[in-house]
Amino acid sequence: MEIDRYFATRRTVRRYTSRQIEPELLTRLLDEASHAPNTGNMQLYSVIVTRSAEDKQALAPLHFNQPSVTGCSVLLTFCIDINRFGLWCKESDADAGFDNLQMLLAAAIDTSLFAQQFNTLAELHGLGCCYLGTTAYNAPQIAEALKLPDGVVPLISLTVGYPDGDAPASDRLPIEAIVHEGEYRRYTPAQIREIYASQEARDDSRQFIAENSKSTLAQVFAEVRYPRATNEAFSKTLQKYLDSTFYKRGN
Amino acid sequence: MEIDRYFATRRTVRRYTSRQIEPELLTRLLDEASHAPNTGNMQLYSVIVTRSAEDKQALAPLHFNQPSVTGCSVLLTFCIDINRFGLWCKESDADAGFDNLQMLLAAAIDTSLFAQQFNTLAELHGLGCCYLGTTAYNAPQIAEALKLPDGVVPLISLTVGYPDGDAPASDRLPIEAIVHEGEYRRYTPAQIREIYASQEARDDSRQFIAENSKSTLAQVFAEVRYPRATNEAFSKTLQKYLDSTFYKRGN
Repeated sequence: MEIDRYFATRRTVRRYTSRQIEPELLTRLLDEASHAPNTGNMQLYSVIVTRSAEDKQALAPLHFNQPSVTGCSVLLTFCIDINRFGLWCKESDADAGFDNLQMLLAAAIDTSLFAQQFNTLAELHGLGCCYLGTTAYNAPQIAEALKLPDGVVPLISLTVGYPDGDAPASDRLPIEAIVHEGEYRRYTPAQIREIYASQEARDDSRQFIAENSKSTLAQVFAEVRYPRATNEAFSKTLQKYLDSTFYKRGN
Repeated sequence: MEIDRYFATRRTVRRYTSRQIEPELLTRLLDEASHAPNTGNMQLYSVIVTRSAEDKQALAPLHFNQPSVTGCSVLLTFCIDINRFGLWCKESDADAGFDNLQMLLAAAIDTSLFAQQFNTLAELHGLGCCYLGTTAYNAPQIAEALKLPDGVVPLISLTVGYPDGDAPASDRLPIEAIVHEGEYRRYTPAQIREIYASQEARDDSRQFIAENSKSTLAQVFAEVRYPRATNEAFSKTLQKYLDSTFYKRGN
């Protein structure tokens, strides 16, 4: 099928032309994306559209000034949202007990499926997208900038625009490394080395190791890009933020 | 575009014919789905494929005996997985500090994007899928059944097969209810009532209210389907499970 080729070769696009996305197209794609599956058809998510140069500029440092934030046509911030549902319950004389870990996770999944469905639709329409991995790091500040009320947690940011130039397709681990038949198979050290061998052998991987004065690619990931101290510090910030804005009853 | 019609009218399929999915097709679709975006190209997920009738039967009660579990061709359990990455780091003399909330969330997003990319591919190939919202409820027991090691958390279960009969398309909230321009707009009570009016007016909604002897649709959601006591009890179980298998250092 023609469509398979798109999925197998899709790529992240970080550089965009100055062409703006037509507002009607954006709304239509978001509308179609909202038909993605979700928990109990409760749609526990919202999306904030950032279009203006000033607003993008204000958000840029919260995403560590990744250039795609100011270079995109629109920045979409997909949020977990139990606020709207809670207001509906309040209007309907119902007690919504959604301020807990299970519903946080359910809403995080639904928000992710909605975002990914939009990503696919946008790509199929010739747009390019880039997920920013930084949203949960600076969730409190992003929430403040976007005026999010309690119960609304920024989860995923996506920059969107018309692609400027070609972007490289990412390779992935061999699918056998990801799929387990019947039950989880324990990897042997030899299997682990084989799974990552092709990624380690790439020119850019060797370059990353050299640039960072490391001896293995795993060290680049675990010690330079996603070091324990950073992960733990941002986890504490996020937990504190969730405790004050989402887990209102201390669940 | 032809593809828009699929996205706007896609539906969840819970009943399947006895036709089995060709193993090569399943592997190909999972492979293509793995090209979905993910954090730092670390692919912090795994998927367990359950095919045999005995294995499905064993998992069925953990999904509250939803009929699609035993009626599907394959049951896929998509898991957060920092185990494989951690083993690679160990083999590579790197310290992986991923046992914390930030990486749990990042991996949960990546797992969700991978699952949704598979869901879309499967549907485009004529298969039908149904997400089960029950995976995180019984995560400890599902982990035991699938022999998941520490660092691997079952997150999403998807039943897959060839559709038996027609399934109804779900309606969704008006897209204006989900999208916010520039910043989050506070809903007025009148806006909330308008947002949910069409859902409340549906015949099946009225039937749910009557069957459950409730007076509003929100009460059916918040007090019958997803009641506070259940959400909170399952949240405690999940937190305890994460503390013992994922947050190994107490982050």
